[in-house]
Amino acid sequence: MKPSIPKGTRDFLPQQVAKRKYIFNAIESVFQKYGYVPIETPVMENLSTLTGKYGEEGDKLLFKILNNGDYLSKADPKALEEKNSAALISSISKRGMRYDLTVPFARYVVMHQNDIQFPFKRYQIQPVWRADRPQKGRYNEFYQCDVDVVGSDSLIYEAELIHIFDEVYHELGIKATISLNNRKVLQGLAEVHGVGDKFVAMTMAIDKLDKIGPEKVIQELEKGGISADQGKQILEALKIDTLDGLDALMGENEVGQKGIEELRAFHTYFDVKSTKNAVKLDVSLARGLNYYTGCIMEVASNEVSIGSIGGGGRYDDLTGVFGLKGVSGVGISFGAARMYDVMEELNLFPDSIQINPSILFTAFDQESLEYGFVQCMALRDEGIAADIYPSPAKMKKQMNYANQRGFKFVAIIGSNEVEKKVVMLKDMQAGTQEELTIEQLISKFS
Amino acid sequence: MKPSIPKGTRDFLPQQVAKRKYIFNAIESVFQKYGYVPIETPVMENLSTLTGKYGEEGDKLLFKILNNGDYLSKADPKALEEKNSAALISSISKRGMRYDLTVPFARYVVMHQNDIQFPFKRYQIQPVWRADRPQKGRYNEFYQCDVDVVGSDSLIYEAELIHIFDEVYHELGIKATISLNNRKVLQGLAEVHGVGDKFVAMTMAIDKLDKIGPEKVIQELEKGGISADQGKQILEALKIDTLDGLDALMGENEVGQKGIEELRAFHTYFDVKSTKNAVKLDVSLARGLNYYTGCIMEVASNEVSIGSIGGGGRYDDLTGVFGLKGVSGVGISFGAARMYDVMEELNLFPDSIQINPSILFTAFDQESLEYGFVQCMALRDEGIAADIYPSPAKMKKQMNYANQRGFKFVAIIGSNEVEKKVVMLKDMQAGTQEELTIEQLISKFS
Repeated sequence: MKPSIPKGTRDFLPQQVAKRKYIFNAIESVFQKYGYVPIETPVMENLSTLTGKYGEEGDKLLFKILNNGDYLSKADPKALEEKNSAALISSISKRGMRYDLTVPFARYVVMHQNDIQFPFKRYQIQPVWRADRPQKGRYNEFYQCDVDVVGSDSLIYEAELIHIFDEVYHELGIKATISLNNRKVLQGLAEVHGVGDKFVAMTMAIDKLDKIGPEKVIQELEKGGISADQGKQILEALKIDTLDGLDALMGENEVGQKGIEELRAFHTYFDVKSTKNAVKLDVSLARGLNYYTGCIMEVASNEVSIGSIGGGGRYDDLTGVFGLKGVSGVGISFGAARMYDVMEELNLFPDSIQINPSILFTAFDQESLEYGFVQCMALRDEGIAADIYPSPAKMKKQMNYANQRGFKFVAIIGSNEVEKKVVMLKDMQAGTQEELTIEQLISKFS
Repeated sequence: MKPSIPKGTRDFLPQQVAKRKYIFNAIESVFQKYGYVPIETPVMENLSTLTGKYGEEGDKLLFKILNNGDYLSKADPKALEEKNSAALISSISKRGMRYDLTVPFARYVVMHQNDIQFPFKRYQIQPVWRADRPQKGRYNEFYQCDVDVVGSDSLIYEAELIHIFDEVYHELGIKATISLNNRKVLQGLAEVHGVGDKFVAMTMAIDKLDKIGPEKVIQELEKGGISADQGKQILEALKIDTLDGLDALMGENEVGQKGIEELRAFHTYFDVKSTKNAVKLDVSLARGLNYYTGCIMEVASNEVSIGSIGGGGRYDDLTGVFGLKGVSGVGISFGAARMYDVMEELNLFPDSIQINPSILFTAFDQESLEYGFVQCMALRDEGIAADIYPSPAKMKKQMNYANQRGFKFVAIIGSNEVEKKVVMLKDMQAGTQEELTIEQLISKFS
């Protein structure tokens, strides 16, 4: 049997695990500095929690888990007889795999509302599953890194989150542009163009502007019942890049003015610190997700064309569907997989990401092996990572092993070294050798 | 809709995540010190990889994932008509959820044999899923922490792994006893008692000794075709606690002597360093898993009766089932969930496990809030974790929030502090207050 793994999933080699962890650690330490705390939720959720939260298309992309035991005994007879795959699901599967971290978070807040303090600032770094058709850069199993705060409508949090974006990308060496908009501004824009009732169709079309260009967006808008003339005016308005310009456009429009007011209030907090990356108003930013109700943001790399590497926004009623109304929240998500690809492409991972110890002991007979193991354990006892080739073998074989695993130093031990109670330390890069006692070794690697 | 999560799964509150991470970090840093490197495998594996690897009972406990789309269109018509749940599975489900880390590791080694170097020393800390009936301390979704080396039969690794056990438990403050045996010794013991052909039945029965006592073990042995007399003799032999004692028992028995030889060779390496925990020969240790072929080990807490908190052993042919023969390996696994329970019960988690920043800024009007946010961001800029209550609110409300989240200090800002450009820092435990400039704040928390 030739083994394989499911399409759209991946094994990670040690170096890849270490690099991904480097990204997660950078993200996590910024989250913690801003007072966010970690939670974890199960991979398996009740299907009833997940179904209907991601639209019809999302429901199809949920991975469903077959009930255990004699699952057919409780299967819906009608669906079974008609071979109706969709209708049968609810009677043979009660669990599904987490599709994102947002819905489980909303469920968590409702279930644990008496154990947590509002405003509740949480982060969560866990994998999610989607039965998309796998393709380059799109997987069925991948990590999300979310940070949200619920239970406050203070615009301090919008400011915090953009600074978090800025600090994380800077820390990782990714040069990015953070775009900012407000769904209320888009709603106002729709209303002043007389298409307030076609808001969803408008934002869905605008959301595709980068991908399909203005011509096709106008066609999309027309499909949504917005005339080509209205469409052109709307596209023109999306080019406004100042709050004063928006102000002039909105005039007396209430929701539009509220959006502008929120953007101004955001700046009160945001401006207390300068950013390393560009942060700009982009009225054409729409974000596809309809649960956003206020500020929205999205991040792109300046150097690699790979789509959004981060995004988020404010939602006024995420927990309502689980029975807790009136809880406002705002959150952002880091696209860790794409950030990984950007960093690989630009060679941004530091050389200091080491997975192997610096030193490997080698020996040529049983006596030198036993002597080497004593030395190796002595280093470990001092907290120094060290390894040893586990059996006497030819010099060439052991040196190959050392090279392939990337050890920087090899401590060579022969009968001469055993007798003198030393090791011959070889610098694998420089090719130089020096004789050292164990005390000297310890002080060199401490 | 009242939200819930599937039976046997858990949400983790921030403090629980932090405590579990404390355990994982301790384990991981010891793994790394000994030269082991991390890998990760997908949660979803092909069912063909998992099925048949855990016995008939294990197959039933696998969580299977329903194929997406119109899965019934390819369903086995006969199984469907007969409503045969077991027979239908292979035609409607091609993926399952990881049941342990050992089988995915074996698959990984075979698939990546050209990307890795042998001996390959890897660790893996990831969750697994089992459809067991949930009960106290037994979950459907839980973490395993495995460390293995494949591609060498050197007994250096047995010695390393026991020292890893010793160091990790000591680091976490868990007082433990590490029991050690060798499956070849058990094989020899079976042979010298004339039941060499009933080896599996013997080890399965012995494995239950702690749980059911000697009387019932003898009954179990009889069921396996071993007479009560033989059973009594075997139980007597299990009390031998020295290698010399075993030597006398085995006489000329080849496999038994090989086991003793391995234990002696193990000691050559193991004895180079003293241990903090007791390590003892226990001939009654059998380990249920039949893939073990050499050294076996198991760990119990000295203070809390909770079953095994760690275990492992050597296997001679784990990768053979995936087409790579003759690769010997040895590995151990930490029972992280039980270790967590032991540490909770004995209050072993250090107070230093902090999830919140030390300081919360509070303000009473818009002016002091804006001033406070500047201070808060200034601390963060210095790498100091800090938080702020996000809107002007009553003193009592903000103090409650500070108390519930466990902030040690609250920086109180009123109009007086804004004017003097200071904060009033309250020590929440001592109840004392002092007036500090931002520079003084920074130097206090740095």
